[in-house]
Amino acid sequence: MSHNSFGHLFRVTTWGESHGPAIGCVVDGCPPGLMLSEGDIQPWLDQRKPGQSKFTTQRREADEVRILSGVFEGRTTGTPIALEIQNTDQRSKDYADIATRYRPGHADVTYDMKYGHRDYRGGGRSSARETAMRVAAGAVARRVLAELVGPSLRIRAALVQIGAIRVDRGRWDWTRTTENPFFCPDAGTVPLWEDLLGEVRKSGSSIGAIVEVAAEGVPAGLGAPIYAKLDSDLAAALMGINGVKGVEIGDGFEVAQLRGEQNADPMRMDDGAIVFESNHAGGILGGISTGQPVVARFAIKPTSSILVPVPSVNRQGAEIDVVTRGRHDPCIGIRAVPVAEAMMALVLADHLLRHHAQNGWSLPRVRLSEA
Amino acid sequence: MSHNSFGHLFRVTTWGESHGPAIGCVVDGCPPGLMLSEGDIQPWLDQRKPGQSKFTTQRREADEVRILSGVFEGRTTGTPIALEIQNTDQRSKDYADIATRYRPGHADVTYDMKYGHRDYRGGGRSSARETAMRVAAGAVARRVLAELVGPSLRIRAALVQIGAIRVDRGRWDWTRTTENPFFCPDAGTVPLWEDLLGEVRKSGSSIGAIVEVAAEGVPAGLGAPIYAKLDSDLAAALMGINGVKGVEIGDGFEVAQLRGEQNADPMRMDDGAIVFESNHAGGILGGISTGQPVVARFAIKPTSSILVPVPSVNRQGAEIDVVTRGRHDPCIGIRAVPVAEAMMALVLADHLLRHHAQNGWSLPRVRLSEA
Amino acid sequence: MSHNSFGHLFRVTTWGESHGPAIGCVVDGCPPGLMLSEGDIQPWLDQRKPGQSKFTTQRREADEVRILSGVFEGRTTGTPIALEIQNTDQRSKDYADIATRYRPGHADVTYDMKYGHRDYRGGGRSSARETAMRVAAGAVARRVLAELVGPSLRIRAALVQIGAIRVDRGRWDWTRTTENPFFCPDAGTVPLWEDLLGEVRKSGSSIGAIVEVAAEGVPAGLGAPIYAKLDSDLAAALMGINGVKGVEIGDGFEVAQLRGEQNADPMRMDDGAIVFESNHAGGILGGISTGQPVVARFAIKPTSSILVPVPSVNRQGAEIDVVTRGRHDPCIGIRAVPVAEAMMALVLADHLLRHHAQNGWSLPRVRLSEA
Amino acid sequence: MSHNSFGHLFRVTTWGESHGPAIGCVVDGCPPGLMLSEGDIQPWLDQRKPGQSKFTTQRREADEVRILSGVFEGRTTGTPIALEIQNTDQRSKDYADIATRYRPGHADVTYDMKYGHRDYRGGGRSSARETAMRVAAGAVARRVLAELVGPSLRIRAALVQIGAIRVDRGRWDWTRTTENPFFCPDAGTVPLWEDLLGEVRKSGSSIGAIVEVAAEGVPAGLGAPIYAKLDSDLAAALMGINGVKGVEIGDGFEVAQLRGEQNADPMRMDDGAIVFESNHAGGILGGISTGQPVVARFAIKPTSSILVPVPSVNRQGAEIDVVTRGRHDPCIGIRAVPVAEAMMALVLADHLLRHHAQNGWSLPRVRLSEA
Repeated sequence: MSHNSFGHLFRVTTWGESHGPAIGCVVDGCPPGLMLSEGDIQPWLDQRKPGQSKFTTQRREADEVRILSGVFEGRTTGTPIALEIQNTDQRSKDYADIATRYRPGHADVTYDMKYGHRDYRGGGRSSARETAMRVAAGAVARRVLAELVGPSLRIRAALVQIGAIRVDRGRWDWTRTTENPFFCPDAGTVPLWEDLLGEVRKSGSSIGAIVEVAAEGVPAGLGAPIYAKLDSDLAAALMGINGVKGVEIGDGFEVAQLRGEQNADPMRMDDGAIVFESNHAGGILGGISTGQPVVARFAIKPTSSILVPVPSVNRQGAEIDVVTRGRHDPCIGIRAVPVAEAMMALVLADHLLRHHAQNGWSLPRVRLSEA
Repeated sequence: MSHNSFGHLFRVTTWGESHGPAIGCVVDGCPPGLMLSEGDIQPWLDQRKPGQSKFTTQRREADEVRILSGVFEGRTTGTPIALEIQNTDQRSKDYADIATRYRPGHADVTYDMKYGHRDYRGGGRSSARETAMRVAAGAVARRVLAELVGPSLRIRAALVQIGAIRVDRGRWDWTRTTENPFFCPDAGTVPLWEDLLGEVRKSGSSIGAIVEVAAEGVPAGLGAPIYAKLDSDLAAALMGINGVKGVEIGDGFEVAQLRGEQNADPMRMDDGAIVFESNHAGGILGGISTGQPVVARFAIKPTSSILVPVPSVNRQGAEIDVVTRGRHDPCIGIRAVPVAEAMMALVLADHLLRHHAQNGWSLPRVRLSEA
Repeated sequence: MSHNSFGHLFRVTTWGESHGPAIGCVVDGCPPGLMLSEGDIQPWLDQRKPGQSKFTTQRREADEVRILSGVFEGRTTGTPIALEIQNTDQRSKDYADIATRYRPGHADVTYDMKYGHRDYRGGGRSSARETAMRVAAGAVARRVLAELVGPSLRIRAALVQIGAIRVDRGRWDWTRTTENPFFCPDAGTVPLWEDLLGEVRKSGSSIGAIVEVAAEGVPAGLGAPIYAKLDSDLAAALMGINGVKGVEIGDGFEVAQLRGEQNADPMRMDDGAIVFESNHAGGILGGISTGQPVVARFAIKPTSSILVPVPSVNRQGAEIDVVTRGRHDPCIGIRAVPVAEAMMALVLADHLLRHHAQNGWSLPRVRLSEA
Repeated sequence: MSHNSFGHLFRVTTWGESHGPAIGCVVDGCPPGLMLSEGDIQPWLDQRKPGQSKFTTQRREADEVRILSGVFEGRTTGTPIALEIQNTDQRSKDYADIATRYRPGHADVTYDMKYGHRDYRGGGRSSARETAMRVAAGAVARRVLAELVGPSLRIRAALVQIGAIRVDRGRWDWTRTTENPFFCPDAGTVPLWEDLLGEVRKSGSSIGAIVEVAAEGVPAGLGAPIYAKLDSDLAAALMGINGVKGVEIGDGFEVAQLRGEQNADPMRMDDGAIVFESNHAGGILGGISTGQPVVARFAIKPTSSILVPVPSVNRQGAEIDVVTRGRHDPCIGIRAVPVAEAMMALVLADHLLRHHAQNGWSLPRVRLSEA
């Protein structure tokens, strides 16, 4: 049991505070013999890197990852892979008054409630900076999936809603997500979000968002019944991203309004294999993957680090109004997109190794009766 | 790592199939010296028991729980508590054609994909019957919380939506939940649901629902950063209930549409203690409890065991239409209400013991600076 | 984390007290599709059963095991396997004065120190009766090893020393172990032990012993570096058997007196495969199996339940002399022999599944360079 | 589950290879608010540091530890503590022919068997260099024990045997252990060991040894029944130290020759508390600490890196004789002494937190009946 580890067989342990000397993680359980270099990890980190547009924090971190162990002559050895990023832009002075003033909606106060002593600089351990290591570890998980499943397994995420403005699903185009600063799959929505976020930023406020993540090519049979369900682990993974308040799989909350025959995905045969005619289930039935795309969404709240004053208290018990200066994201949902992909990769890699343990190395498949 | 265990320090391992000789669980880690008898567990099981109204399955199980170990002279000994319920009403013949026909929307097909061999009778291990043991273990967790936190900690759940019909929150009255077969907190909604479910049942279909669960009196400071967040564990717990497709905490998916100042819960002092003026956060900030009520909701899909035919395939790879006879719940959300309470109790008991491990036995509290 | 579970991927959780209604265990993680019935388990339990000779306790338990879940139509389903044995011969009255009198050398006092409340009847949870479930679970592990490795993997144990009398290794014959009540591999030693134990029993005392367990046909490559070493897990498994005070692998404590060249096992090629010319290592190097027999030994103390009075105290803090009546084994080492085999099977099955998770289903082998 | 983590609630994950850029560890679960700085860790590392006498390897490492997270303003924050040591003296060229030649008695061959690809430089992950991080983490565990138990808890280890030469227990003096390069508690034995090791070194060989570790002031009640026994965890911890082949607690293998009344430690009352009149049990009964000193011993084999040629094979399958040049310890038992202390500290800290979780923060004590 560990508070700072994720996964069981593909297990990631992260460490580090926003303004400490470095952040890092240890990836344990990675199969041996996989090609792996910093070049496999850095591009994913670059996606998440702050300071890439005026819509994300202006903090500038090179976020250069270094592999310190577990890889020899370009291939994994099966021993723990240590990854590390030096923190370079630590303007701790910006955070001087966070030391004693609790931002409403922020973990400042609960960390103090729990531990009585915390590194308040930049949010310390509660900073979203920790998610850089999830992205780094997720890149290793992608290598595992690429080698053990193959290139058919593809994980992609997109921002689908900011405030009340949703993307038009009829215009969904994955290639668009790399062409705008929002990971938006619908070019038509981009200018609307630009206007909205411009206004939010000018008013010193922040706004919530919804992210969707999908994994295509997931082998059928991943997951496990009861307490190690694929959707259960995915829910934990996504709810654990900073600021997330809701998670859904497939049709999600819409299922409340459906009848049984509307919600069930009909099955048919195609070339000897079972195919589903719809994907209300989001690729998971009974906690086990069906072979269809695994689709999840999560809602992420507006950051509590805003210039709009909110009534609060300080460590000394005085009532104050809190205004948070410093460099913050007006919509933290944007930079959560690469993190969503990483968490999906981590969950799938872990479940793939779990499946191997109990069911063998060969990928699961529908086994039709021989008769 | 275990597929069939829940929790870390207050750890529950369940076993058993719907139509096997019995179902059971082992509760490990329970503190010693607590008063515990079958009488503490049975009432919660009775709430979940099938066959109590025409809106739940007509399967009749006494669901009498027996404590087989871990309790001596009426008090827990700190050793594992084994609980067991005999299966008495096993009409296996009802399920004969489920053996080879995959119900669309059901785990039949994914269990076969994963394991290649399953106990198909009544859904076997994938049956919601397993949740009886969660309720039983949850009753033990309630005893832990009652002894270590006190009677101020109170866990309650209610059904808040069936189909498109939601309760009127203005008329919310917890006492109502025990007065109707739906665990509905709003008497005015009950007849509407009766009509709706009557129609659903008559048409041989089923319908989805939304359940809300709240824990009042949760001490501040429970939870842990990063990967053992209280909300993350709660999301896993609730998403792991059969048929759940979405989970939210506090304002949930609504946060996407909020500004920072709308979502942040202002803090004020009251008699030397921090109080929050609203609870958008659902009692959790940064993965740690604030001392406010912990509030979660989840959406549960319509059961796939319906009389309406849906296109499917069988084990031999032939295309068929599936109609599921037998005794099924038209709205599985109803009987999920006691399960929701149980999962909340299990998560809180586990996190309470975790907190003890790292931070000591005394309950967490806001520690204001001595200065 | 669980106090009453063993193993990680092949995970056994036991429950039950010596004089409760039953004892049982849950085996989680067993691969699906294996043939398994009570008939695969009962013979191993019968070996450990009390009352089979005058040298073991006269308590009579049928020790009939029942499979309650996880097996359908004779094959495992991949879901948890619950095993249960009813306790039939519970003469609780025999133990009346153990309730308040601490047997020197027994866990009576430490259970009270830790928990303040215990089931004292027959030692409750600290009774060696719990080891029946290890033997039962070990039988399931044997099925896993038989299916996944094959019949070449063979686990056997023997008693090699009682008091100062050791077997003559020159006369070692495994077939002998089934022909005498001591699991003694040397027929010549049997009458010496009979005399010794007769005398010990007459004097109302007890005596220590040493057990050796060997697994032949273990594939090379099982185990893991650092904290999941095969020898480390084996040491934990054997030290966890009631009364064990020392564990050694291969040459064990003798290595202290060896030079490097004496202790190293030379390697040679035989038909394209690496062979070792000796087995000082006991089949494990760097925590990983070499393919040679895995050999371990452990010392087990004389039971503290004796008729010879020993100075002690009672729960009320009075000084007393303790004499333990009731039915006890004069040499608990004897019945530890089947338990040793079971623990070896459990460790190997767990490590086999671990190996599958990280390295794939195919058995590990020496991979010589292709060049 | 993790191959490279130790402990459950006080959990250490190590990473790094002998000749990689650095080695490190993450300590998760440390209580918040403890004073901790590099100065608390470095002295213990210095004890283990190579190159301090002619009887240990001449490799020179500064072994300067750096705390990278989890400590703020001199006190722990309850978040993960990352420790790191740069590798400075990496003469990789020394190890060129280890790449393809398997040292008999070394993990070279089994790592290749398991992973097929390894960092052979200096033994890579199998090098005893990893134990530096155990010592570092052990120093953090000592801080936990010092704060939560107090200065009465004292952990010390000594070398008690090299080859056939044992210390004279009649002359045991703990203060001596810091005055000679062998951690020898008996000044009279030191010149004998000097002569022996001088001869061993000159002959290009190596020799085995026995280490004893004792913890005084351990509170009664630590440990847990069945599979989390204090002795079981201690056995795993010590057997996991590189080269260890045997572990014993208290009288260890001697118990085989004892009668029940000889082995049982009589109890008497002293000032209202239970006292034991001897300590055959080594401070542990039924897996739970008695309050007496916890005493363990382990045998460590002679290193396989020697100048004496031993028949072996290479990666290409050719038969060769292996001679290992480079800088090696003639008796690796010496530098295992500080590691033994560290492992004892890690096991005790983990069990202390476990005890807190289930039994509360207050230290366990013998609870005599109020009557």
